[in-house]
Amino acid sequence: MKKFRQQTLGELGELGVIRRLVHGLPARADVVVGPGDDCAVVRIADKARYDYLLKSDPVVEGVHFTRETPGAAVGHKALARVLSDMAAMGGEGLWALVDITAPAGTSLARLMAIRAGLSKLARRWRVAIVGGDVSRGRDLAVHVFGVGRVPRGQAVLRSGARKGDYLFVTGTLGGSERGKHLKFEPRLAEGQWLRNRHWATAMIDLSDGLATDLKHLIRSSRVGAELWLNAIPLSPAVKKTTSWRKAAQRAITDGEDYELLFSVPTAKSAELLRAWKKVFAAPCTYIGRITSQRYVIAGLDARGRRIPLKAAGYEHFR
Amino acid sequence: MKKFRQQTLGELGELGVIRRLVHGLPARADVVVGPGDDCAVVRIADKARYDYLLKSDPVVEGVHFTRETPGAAVGHKALARVLSDMAAMGGEGLWALVDITAPAGTSLARLMAIRAGLSKLARRWRVAIVGGDVSRGRDLAVHVFGVGRVPRGQAVLRSGARKGDYLFVTGTLGGSERGKHLKFEPRLAEGQWLRNRHWATAMIDLSDGLATDLKHLIRSSRVGAELWLNAIPLSPAVKKTTSWRKAAQRAITDGEDYELLFSVPTAKSAELLRAWKKVFAAPCTYIGRITSQRYVIAGLDARGRRIPLKAAGYEHFR
Repeated sequence: MKKFRQQTLGELGELGVIRRLVHGLPARADVVVGPGDDCAVVRIADKARYDYLLKSDPVVEGVHFTRETPGAAVGHKALARVLSDMAAMGGEGLWALVDITAPAGTSLARLMAIRAGLSKLARRWRVAIVGGDVSRGRDLAVHVFGVGRVPRGQAVLRSGARKGDYLFVTGTLGGSERGKHLKFEPRLAEGQWLRNRHWATAMIDLSDGLATDLKHLIRSSRVGAELWLNAIPLSPAVKKTTSWRKAAQRAITDGEDYELLFSVPTAKSAELLRAWKKVFAAPCTYIGRITSQRYVIAGLDARGRRIPLKAAGYEHFR
Repeated sequence: MKKFRQQTLGELGELGVIRRLVHGLPARADVVVGPGDDCAVVRIADKARYDYLLKSDPVVEGVHFTRETPGAAVGHKALARVLSDMAAMGGEGLWALVDITAPAGTSLARLMAIRAGLSKLARRWRVAIVGGDVSRGRDLAVHVFGVGRVPRGQAVLRSGARKGDYLFVTGTLGGSERGKHLKFEPRLAEGQWLRNRHWATAMIDLSDGLATDLKHLIRSSRVGAELWLNAIPLSPAVKKTTSWRKAAQRAITDGEDYELLFSVPTAKSAELLRAWKKVFAAPCTYIGRITSQRYVIAGLDARGRRIPLKAAGYEHFR
């Protein structure tokens, strides 16, 4: 067998690599939440009104978009991914830096289109682009670093879900590769509302697929979950799939939905749905419940029969 | 002639590309300094004690380091570049995020070595690594996003140099490719001291070469400069060069010195040098003076004769 440290990223997989990289990193007392949630949370002073959110995310040609993807969509996606993570903590975006690597043969027009897509989304959410860098690389890649904020002590973490809480999801799931992954609007308004009204006990944005991201949430909260497969809101793109079972499978594994998954105490759940409908056009659906069976996700069909889940989200290095 | 927007990055050059990208980016009222200085400066609240510094910088294999560069040196350089920019504003580092792109065949050992180099430097300067991301890419690249701080209203900008100010530089210049570009220690202590004692009217870190970075400083300050070529402190690596003139040329164009270049009012200059020697081991040398001849750098030899400067710094896309 290969010696552990000689293993490649491809052999270890993205999560295996990240787990090894984050263990024991340098820390500070003013870090409220370090690696492992949607954003890092830092506290700048004891009397400050806000905590600050830090998040970086890359989009790389050949991984997150293709050579044919319009530049404006690339720029939109690069910033939207970061803002989606801030939404998942109930926060807002403030400032962003943008690093671009590009081959020397890249046209200025492509870069200007990326910039236009980024700027348009930034203006809509009042985010300032305050700097960045352009350097040579074989891949066209856009790295966005964002700083956001959330009222002090109120960031919605992945770790607050409690037994009995209902699980909700915004929008519809699956088939994002048909276009939504490039065009989605980060659910900032929804995330802030859920935080402000204290509805959500835990929240995460769906980037790797419901099955994988729910796993992150229950691990952080040290709980389990029941997933009601027939309740999952299917996107029009996967509804056309021949069998219901295949459609549901895609809805929980496709990834890049950029919807919010969150837990709400039982007593508040009916009220949340009523209030939601008055404010937001996007659907909000309950799709399961938090259980005490630690780290177990039980998929249930319409008759309550257990269905095994293939929890394969997107894997970078395989 | 090619239509402007169809031109490639190689044809336009790094600075041409960046100039076009930063023009008219989305802004906010709380941004004190936007794109175009060593770091962006943001103000979080009117009564806050500190302003915050934001900076991102990538290192890419084949551009900033090679396949043979030890991982620890790659990690050190990636973070040190960002901290050097904070030093140039008189600031300190607080938190960093690290995005790594890597081919699937990269060994975990290489990533762990990069992490070790990053962590060691972060611990020394009390910077917390609070998150990041690993994703697939053809290039091994490390993007560091840093947040730092400086007492409110006291960031040392590129724009404060005035006619008559003396120009100083820390350390020695040239020949950084012989190893210094991987091992340099960011001049954080020196930068903070220069800011705290109000010595420096303007400051920049030397990443693209003295000639190019001095150009940035005089442009921001809307002034000119005289550069006393025989006064420039030469690194041991370029001192061996056959002719003095060639050695001086390399010292002003080689780049990646990561020293501080700053201007000091005439009346304070002698006092600064005396005070400096009591605190720091690194040399601090005056190498010229600010003039009113806007945007002109005049190179002068030991007898005061003008010598034409080839101001070619490192160019990413050519």
